Amino acid sequence: MDNVEFGRIAIIGMGNVGKHLLTAFTQNNISVAEIYTRDYNESKSISEYFPVTPVKEIATISADLCIVCVSDRAINDVINQLPRAAKIAYTSGSVELDIIDRKEQIGVFYPLQTFSKEMVLNYREIPFFIESYSPEISLELFQLASKISEQVHFSDSDLRKKMHLAAVFVNNFVNHQIYIAEQLSCQFAFDPEVLLPLLKETVNKAIVNGAFLSQTGPAKRGESLIISQHEQLLDNDNFKAIYKAITKSIISTYHDKL
Amino acid sequence: MDNVEFGRIAIIGMGNVGKHLLTAFTQNNISVAEIYTRDYNESKSISEYFPVTPVKEIATISADLCIVCVSDRAINDVINQLPRAAKIAYTSGSVELDIIDRKEQIGVFYPLQTFSKEMVLNYREIPFFIESYSPEISLELFQLASKISEQVHFSDSDLRKKMHLAAVFVNNFVNHQIYIAEQLSCQFAFDPEVLLPLLKETVNKAIVNGAFLSQTGPAKRGESLIISQHEQLLDNDNFKAIYKAITKSIISTYHDKL
Repeated sequence: MDNVEFGRIAIIGMGNVGKHLLTAFTQNNISVAEIYTRDYNESKSISEYFPVTPVKEIATISADLCIVCVSDRAINDVINQLPRAAKIAYTSGSVELDIIDRKEQIGVFYPLQTFSKEMVLNYREIPFFIESYSPEISLELFQLASKISEQVHFSDSDLRKKMHLAAVFVNNFVNHQIYIAEQLSCQFAFDPEVLLPLLKETVNKAIVNGAFLSQTGPAKRGESLIISQHEQLLDNDNFKAIYKAITKSIISTYHDKL
Repeated sequence: MDNVEFGRIAIIGMGNVGKHLLTAFTQNNISVAEIYTRDYNESKSISEYFPVTPVKEIATISADLCIVCVSDRAINDVINQLPRAAKIAYTSGSVELDIIDRKEQIGVFYPLQTFSKEMVLNYREIPFFIESYSPEISLELFQLASKISEQVHFSDSDLRKKMHLAAVFVNNFVNHQIYIAEQLSCQFAFDPEVLLPLLKETVNKAIVNGAFLSQTGPAKRGESLIISQHEQLLDNDNFKAIYKAITKSIISTYHDKL
């Protein structure tokens, strides 16, 4: 199928990002003509649910625009295998445009979100960041992202990498704090569900009031006795090192600023 | 005013916990007869909005049950000033019952939540943890908490302290990750709002799938080049130390377990 504005689109890679983009495009009446994954059977089974052609050999892709949703370390290799005629965009936050061998008809289409198979997302609020050497490709990718989302921005590789670093704190590191709490609930034999209202409210409060004003706890209050009791309770050395590093940073944040 | 089941109730301390308990009791038709704070004018102004008597001298409180919502380090002192005839409960997660001088008619009434002035909370889902030497006081505090919340449990001081430690990770440390991301957005000149859909989805995903399965990012994938680029971008030593400690722990979690 052809899209009037964007021609035929292919998605390369059917991990979480690729599958969610396929869903988001389809929901917004953007046809995806072709999909490619290393596992052709997976592509075939996806083509039972979406009106797409599964492609067996990457070099035979015939789409006008290929969106590459593979792991960071595979991006350059995959792009080198794609037909020279196609316009190409990749979806990574960390991979700089100038490390890609290909210099023509290439751009970035980066959604700042965490994707997983099971979760239903509101695509309209996901920020997309667009980059290209070519103003025409930039504009085309911007318009394509705008069909899915209301939050589309241009960003160069340097800023995208910096936002990705902030995203690591907000996503990867927040998730690991929750993981540690889950592990403690297991070790200390209490139901981790008792922590969920607190977790939800922590995020609500940080969003409404900002995290600086929302900070509470023994480190903020400088309660050294409770801090040392907590450290004694932690018998996992990595968890203890995290406790110490974050506590030191909180103390320094409020000691220096207040 | 008298409550048939609980007699006259006083709340000592009108910080965030005290104010929210006053609101929660009032919403659930539990009368609060008296309130006390160090700043009598604050008590008087609260008494314009709630049907409570502001008390000027702590020793003159005449309630049957005093709920002490003061900072951890002030709890024992405040309890020592209260009339001997009153039953007393305090609301701390960290303060053990056996370090309180008073041994009779004393209990713990601990809500596992973060409270702030501005935020409206659904009290029915807040877990309360109850402890007392006296079965009668335990039962009375359990019944009182059950008027506010559907999540009331008994817990001894040791378990309460362990849950409080897990709460530090879920609340204080999650908040500090968000703070660091806010600081990076400021330093790198991008709008922190672009991180909010990611933050919300991070928590949704951890709640639905558990944090172990939800982990993504360079540390999970062992991308040492991106990790070292991130460390170079962090010029705050505390933030860099946190990045290193959490990255090490994530690598160890997935390296050891997979």
